[in-house]
Amino acid sequence: MNTIDKVKLAKEASIQLAACGTELKNRALEAIAVALRAESAAILAANKTDLAAAEAAGLTGPLLKRLAFDEKKLEGVVEGVESLVKLEDPVGKKLRCTELDEGLVLTKVSCPIGVIGVIFESRPDALVQISTLCLKSGNAAVLKGGSEALNTNRELARVIAAATEKTGIPANWLQLLETRADVNEMLALDDYIDLIIPRGSNAFVKYIMTHTNIAVMGHAEGLCHVYVDAAADIEMARKVVVDSKTQYVSVCNAAETLLVHEKIAPSLLPLLANDLREKNVKLLGCEKTRAIVDMEPATEADWDTEYLDYILSIKIVRDEDEAIAHINKHGSGHTEVIVTTDDAAAEKFMSLVDAADVFWNCSSRFADGFRFGLGAEVGISTNKIHARGPVGLEGLVIYKWLLKGHGDIVADYAEGRKHFTHRPL
Amino acid sequence: MNTIDKVKLAKEASIQLAACGTELKNRALEAIAVALRAESAAILAANKTDLAAAEAAGLTGPLLKRLAFDEKKLEGVVEGVESLVKLEDPVGKKLRCTELDEGLVLTKVSCPIGVIGVIFESRPDALVQISTLCLKSGNAAVLKGGSEALNTNRELARVIAAATEKTGIPANWLQLLETRADVNEMLALDDYIDLIIPRGSNAFVKYIMTHTNIAVMGHAEGLCHVYVDAAADIEMARKVVVDSKTQYVSVCNAAETLLVHEKIAPSLLPLLANDLREKNVKLLGCEKTRAIVDMEPATEADWDTEYLDYILSIKIVRDEDEAIAHINKHGSGHTEVIVTTDDAAAEKFMSLVDAADVFWNCSSRFADGFRFGLGAEVGISTNKIHARGPVGLEGLVIYKWLLKGHGDIVADYAEGRKHFTHRPL
Repeated sequence: MNTIDKVKLAKEASIQLAACGTELKNRALEAIAVALRAESAAILAANKTDLAAAEAAGLTGPLLKRLAFDEKKLEGVVEGVESLVKLEDPVGKKLRCTELDEGLVLTKVSCPIGVIGVIFESRPDALVQISTLCLKSGNAAVLKGGSEALNTNRELARVIAAATEKTGIPANWLQLLETRADVNEMLALDDYIDLIIPRGSNAFVKYIMTHTNIAVMGHAEGLCHVYVDAAADIEMARKVVVDSKTQYVSVCNAAETLLVHEKIAPSLLPLLANDLREKNVKLLGCEKTRAIVDMEPATEADWDTEYLDYILSIKIVRDEDEAIAHINKHGSGHTEVIVTTDDAAAEKFMSLVDAADVFWNCSSRFADGFRFGLGAEVGISTNKIHARGPVGLEGLVIYKWLLKGHGDIVADYAEGRKHFTHRPL
Repeated sequence: MNTIDKVKLAKEASIQLAACGTELKNRALEAIAVALRAESAAILAANKTDLAAAEAAGLTGPLLKRLAFDEKKLEGVVEGVESLVKLEDPVGKKLRCTELDEGLVLTKVSCPIGVIGVIFESRPDALVQISTLCLKSGNAAVLKGGSEALNTNRELARVIAAATEKTGIPANWLQLLETRADVNEMLALDDYIDLIIPRGSNAFVKYIMTHTNIAVMGHAEGLCHVYVDAAADIEMARKVVVDSKTQYVSVCNAAETLLVHEKIAPSLLPLLANDLREKNVKLLGCEKTRAIVDMEPATEADWDTEYLDYILSIKIVRDEDEAIAHINKHGSGHTEVIVTTDDAAAEKFMSLVDAADVFWNCSSRFADGFRFGLGAEVGISTNKIHARGPVGLEGLVIYKWLLKGHGDIVADYAEGRKHFTHRPL
């Protein structure tokens, strides 16, 4: 079937799916868990085919590891699906209720967005995670996974679709696209797709953002800073910087640039440089930094570089204002950290830094849906519209306004015969 | 000054403006009200210049009327500014507070979006209304008004900017663009502008939506339906249809197509046709409709036409499912109405119709921020992301996540030494 027909089917299904109750959606999630376990042999066999092809094509260690889908990974995603059952349904919440006049009641109710397009890279776990998040939030899903994982993804999508349809979920709510050309077609289908969530490299996400009129939720870059203020506790600063940089270097919430107040730099930097070098971090510094600790120079380009690696650029700043200005200029609006014992400096930082996450005396690595207690993470958004930072199920819903009357007409109000009460209920 | 420099200044100001407290913002709004009254002579004189130029250029009645800005209109907008003072500040609300672990507290706080670009047509009142909505919500504003109103807009922007700066609001938060070329430049400035709100014709809004990567809030079309169900009260249906169509024909929430259940059509349509023709509404019907009441035929194109005029297309449907399918196919996701005494039919309609506003037994004309009791209307959105339907001040804010710790690092949790509590506070 071609892309537009698949997407049209998803759109039709989305209308019915939006009206499915919590109990039905949870029953469908449970059926997915059961079916994934029951059909594990077929799924793992499909993955073996993908792995063999990938090896033959010369794929290397970490990529192969992400592509691999074994018993343990399967069990992990099944447990994820089961935990989704326990989460509160984000759909159907009364967000506001107002009596406009006697007998004329307005209710703002959360509802699914509609059709979500998700484009992700090689990991097949993502297919299960994303499709079940969409199902729980009542959205139809059009998915495109990495082409290396095509056989695994086909099996997973088949098992999930079949299990849910048996429980009474409308057919066609889950569609799998298979080629890069399909993705380009999808980007033009703004009449049918309401939101696109791209997961992948910066360049890839940027490409998606600039090639569609559909709303895109995600982040192209995670250029995060730690600013160590004059009034910082040195031991705390060392801990927070080392964790922010090295706890997991290849992720968007790892720190890339360290900003240090000039007053604390001479006492902090020699210790911190040792800590980081013990963890094999390569340091790049501004001139003032290099006067304190010998290291390679940082260039202007470094302030705009997301290394995603064991590299940290370091800049000494005159004061907090310079740190805030640097962050607002070079940061990606993802996660920004201040280390200080000065409450006023912290409050200033938290109010003037324009980022999804602004942290005080803790590691940038806490920027994550599970750590935030959101239950399940749809993604991390650096947009400033709709959802920002780690996004849970609430990022997959919008609302509609329901108004119930008894033949009420506007002419009565426009001509002064009736008056609004606007009483909150 | 060129567009990019103006926009950069607005961006800088937006950072400081985001941190301004409620009291300061309200003081600034009061200062605007005082200044507009004090400088009314200069404003009205500028408007006379615009009006004279417009008349000389051959502008006609209604357009001139929209451009005119007299004592009465000025007083109207000043009262609007004063009422804005009384509204709750949408910024700084604690939306969620979670203890991640002892001493590690996460707070989700509403904050301004940043820089809002607004493009509006000739009415100068819009400049005051929009700039003060942005100010109340802590956003910098880049405005482009109709070129016919340039002198009036310049005076208004000057008075507003000067009044607010005197109270301590950061300079440059309000920028006025003056040419169409400026608008095209603005559409490319996605590094500085966070949201664009276009107000104008469908074609204009569509143009904006397809020519920028910046998020756009608004609606291109308002193609609204009234569906009269088999179980409708005929007198109520007549009232609701007449009001939805004729109370104000040139607005987005006026009805354009009437759908009638085939069972009620023979008794309803002759009466309703009389009602509507008395109001000078031209009727266009499907074949079944024309078999009951003589009228011109509706073509396929009529189901997709927003007349914004005294014209109504009428279609008879077999059942509610056909009505819902027709609406989901041809509607613009704005406002949809069912008239019925059957609760089950109404519930079905409200859950399956995919629109911002879904109304039961009342006129489509209620779809409006003031009627909804939102206090002040930013616009009406048919997007399904961020804000939908009539949008109040809450549509101009997003949130940030603030995390306060005491040197907390992720390694402690990743390596099992500590565990999250995720306790709601």
